[in-house]
Amino acid sequence: MNTDKLPTRSENFSEWYNQLILRSEMADYAPVRGCMVVRPYGWALWENIQSALDKRFKETGHTNAAFPLFIPMSFLEKEKEHVEGFSPELAVVTIGGGEKLEEPLVVRPTSETIIGYMYSKWIKSYRDLPVLINQWGNVVRWEMRTRLFLRTLEFYWQEGHTAHATAEEAVEETVRMLNVYTDFAVNEAAVPVIPGRKSETEKFAGASDSYTIEAMMGDTRALQSGTSHFLGQNFAKAFDIQFLDPNNQQQHCWTTSWGLSTRFIGAIIMTHGDDQGLVLPPRLAPIQIVIVPIFRNDEEQAKVMSVAETLNRQLAEFRVKLDARSEVTPGFKFNDWEMRGVPLRIEIGPKDVDNGVVTVARRHLPGRAGKSTLPLGSEIAAQVQTVLDEIQAAMLVKARNFRDAHIHEPKDYEELRQIVQDGWALAYWCGSTECEARVKEDTKATTRCIPLDQPEGQGKCIVCGQPAKSKVYFARAY
Amino acid sequence: MNTDKLPTRSENFSEWYNQLILRSEMADYAPVRGCMVVRPYGWALWENIQSALDKRFKETGHTNAAFPLFIPMSFLEKEKEHVEGFSPELAVVTIGGGEKLEEPLVVRPTSETIIGYMYSKWIKSYRDLPVLINQWGNVVRWEMRTRLFLRTLEFYWQEGHTAHATAEEAVEETVRMLNVYTDFAVNEAAVPVIPGRKSETEKFAGASDSYTIEAMMGDTRALQSGTSHFLGQNFAKAFDIQFLDPNNQQQHCWTTSWGLSTRFIGAIIMTHGDDQGLVLPPRLAPIQIVIVPIFRNDEEQAKVMSVAETLNRQLAEFRVKLDARSEVTPGFKFNDWEMRGVPLRIEIGPKDVDNGVVTVARRHLPGRAGKSTLPLGSEIAAQVQTVLDEIQAAMLVKARNFRDAHIHEPKDYEELRQIVQDGWALAYWCGSTECEARVKEDTKATTRCIPLDQPEGQGKCIVCGQPAKSKVYFARAY
Repeated sequence: MNTDKLPTRSENFSEWYNQLILRSEMADYAPVRGCMVVRPYGWALWENIQSALDKRFKETGHTNAAFPLFIPMSFLEKEKEHVEGFSPELAVVTIGGGEKLEEPLVVRPTSETIIGYMYSKWIKSYRDLPVLINQWGNVVRWEMRTRLFLRTLEFYWQEGHTAHATAEEAVEETVRMLNVYTDFAVNEAAVPVIPGRKSETEKFAGASDSYTIEAMMGDTRALQSGTSHFLGQNFAKAFDIQFLDPNNQQQHCWTTSWGLSTRFIGAIIMTHGDDQGLVLPPRLAPIQIVIVPIFRNDEEQAKVMSVAETLNRQLAEFRVKLDARSEVTPGFKFNDWEMRGVPLRIEIGPKDVDNGVVTVARRHLPGRAGKSTLPLGSEIAAQVQTVLDEIQAAMLVKARNFRDAHIHEPKDYEELRQIVQDGWALAYWCGSTECEARVKEDTKATTRCIPLDQPEGQGKCIVCGQPAKSKVYFARAY
Repeated sequence: MNTDKLPTRSENFSEWYNQLILRSEMADYAPVRGCMVVRPYGWALWENIQSALDKRFKETGHTNAAFPLFIPMSFLEKEKEHVEGFSPELAVVTIGGGEKLEEPLVVRPTSETIIGYMYSKWIKSYRDLPVLINQWGNVVRWEMRTRLFLRTLEFYWQEGHTAHATAEEAVEETVRMLNVYTDFAVNEAAVPVIPGRKSETEKFAGASDSYTIEAMMGDTRALQSGTSHFLGQNFAKAFDIQFLDPNNQQQHCWTTSWGLSTRFIGAIIMTHGDDQGLVLPPRLAPIQIVIVPIFRNDEEQAKVMSVAETLNRQLAEFRVKLDARSEVTPGFKFNDWEMRGVPLRIEIGPKDVDNGVVTVARRHLPGRAGKSTLPLGSEIAAQVQTVLDEIQAAMLVKARNFRDAHIHEPKDYEELRQIVQDGWALAYWCGSTECEARVKEDTKATTRCIPLDQPEGQGKCIVCGQPAKSKVYFARAY
């Protein structure tokens, strides 16, 4: 372990982020530009994210499948906006088995096209609808400026693709999955995201409407953390996804797609992390509890280790680790596990054993404030569960308070320009691309989302003063 | 559903296999040559395979991680045998973001090289060893002749990669994972594989020793169903994976790799399937039980459906499906679920309700032999569990009997030539490449494995008559 101090967040948020990921062994740089290796600690977090999401997908009627990595170039060209959006970012296979390919193959940047093609083969009748399929996999987008987890050439994600008989059902699905993402983010990751609709400029290439969950990072910048798209009949028309309706008429389907990626790991790091390192929410943390035995001699060791091992067994229902390393000091272990963001540390020393208690330290409350004692005994697992639940809830409150303290409603354009330097501005906006572009040019802030939750009535655009129906968040974003 | 009859296995095993996969909706052909789409029913089977294996990997101390899809071409060239083995099969990315790449990137055919590179960065001291990492992912091999699941350009697998301080530990790991595969195949998939060592000719490109589990398909051909490789110091030397030993000396690591892929789905289909369709082992089947209500009028429907729904709830701990479709007949449903290989069908008609029983039909025993009745009531879940356990055990016995009936020990070379036309030959072999090549030329049979389980003493090579230490299986293989 590198024992140099991490840069602090206020010193250099960006370096704090990069260093923390490397030192906590969440990920590493790969020998291919812009690619990452997700190390076991990072992948275990992703597995917990996958499992929390997958459960929700299955509860809402979806099944998983796997579509090819390679997409014929001609497929992308069938949807005009789609190919315009993605063609600058493509990785292209031109050689296979030593021969030049007749048609180059694109490494999928997203799978609407190839899945659309398959749906056109599978869907014949209204009885085949809805089709509700999700895929867990990797995709590639040839990005120029990359950051671990936030923007890498290859990343891991899930992409849901559904086909419906009516526009209403497809819109309902789009919003349902946005709500699934919101529920996951808030209740599993303690990331208080704001769900809303994207502007025309910010929507997915080929979508009729894009929805997003937006999270505020520790430097107040916004991170788009998951998206759900209503694709209208755009892909159904491009790929001829048709069905025979109950009146024996051919109709085009209405489709959706929705995705959440390893980028969300970046959201967790930058929402909760502090100057000591990661702070992981108990529900997703790869290690929820670390037990650190403390002793100075063999006699104390025997006494403490026996209790530590019993406790380790009593807590087997949790993701618990007994850190029995002998080559490092307890102080080193404290720092190490703090850096790795383990939500709860249990210390056991000889005095604790004598008193029949353990000391617990809560990662999200460094120092004395987060420490208390728990009695050893048969109730310990239930008590630890209560503490973990409290930590989970407290992390959400803390993140929500931080977010709300950095959202302001500007009274005029000048105030908007100030606010977005260190926060988000919530303001009426007329919806025009010109006003959006002006804010971006003046401040680097973009429209993040038109929140689902809107006030009654209407107001005046913060930029041009024209009548405006909805408020929008403006913020600088990752 | 296509209601034409499947080709029978004896008519055309190969067409039976292809048709069955398409009709049962396990997989479909992709619009890219040699690629497949794994449909929800096939992917659900793969998820169950993944979960059974992943549990075993974690119990043996492994963690998962994710390494990049793209490997610089120069990496492959660092291990001579490795590049010779894989270079004819590579898919190569030459364009990224619209620009020609300076160094082409290979889409990974396997990840020894890039993982070796990362291990050389991570491993410094004997304290860092062993490193025990697995990856679930997709790989690409540009095959010329492809078959759904058995050999596709892109396939899904897990690849374990471990690094150790000594040769002994690495060999132990290689055999441990071979045993994990054997245990999985036998006890989860009811596929009675034979574990053994590969010949020099058949081993993995770059390995010192390759181990395999070999399964006999319903046409008696062999299918290599999982492999575990002892890589010696070959990759450690090529990628400079070194550690400081306790005496402060630099040493090269000893490494292993092991993999099992979606090919195993082919093994399950061709081990258990019959002329009616798939026969899936209860422990892995996506749907373990299907409930088919039978009624002729509204009154019967009300009576039967109420019992069927109660039963569906009572069996919620299983992967159960109540087939309440009204547009098809019970007979159609019977055929449909038989074709899809659901291990247990429960039929409920009005008379059954009157008698307080249900009829159960076991997929692996078609016709009357597989039918019996079970009393409705609070014990039904436990009784169904017993039946599923019996089915699982019976499927293994059946497959093992078939296999053993088609393994023969030839008394001379002429008999070997006969045997491998419709079975496997187990015979002494001197170990020479020449004898192996002669058998292949004469019969198309290859050495499948030198089984771990060997008789005492020695014998004479079935080909050349020279002294031979071990027996080997010869068989035609997929």
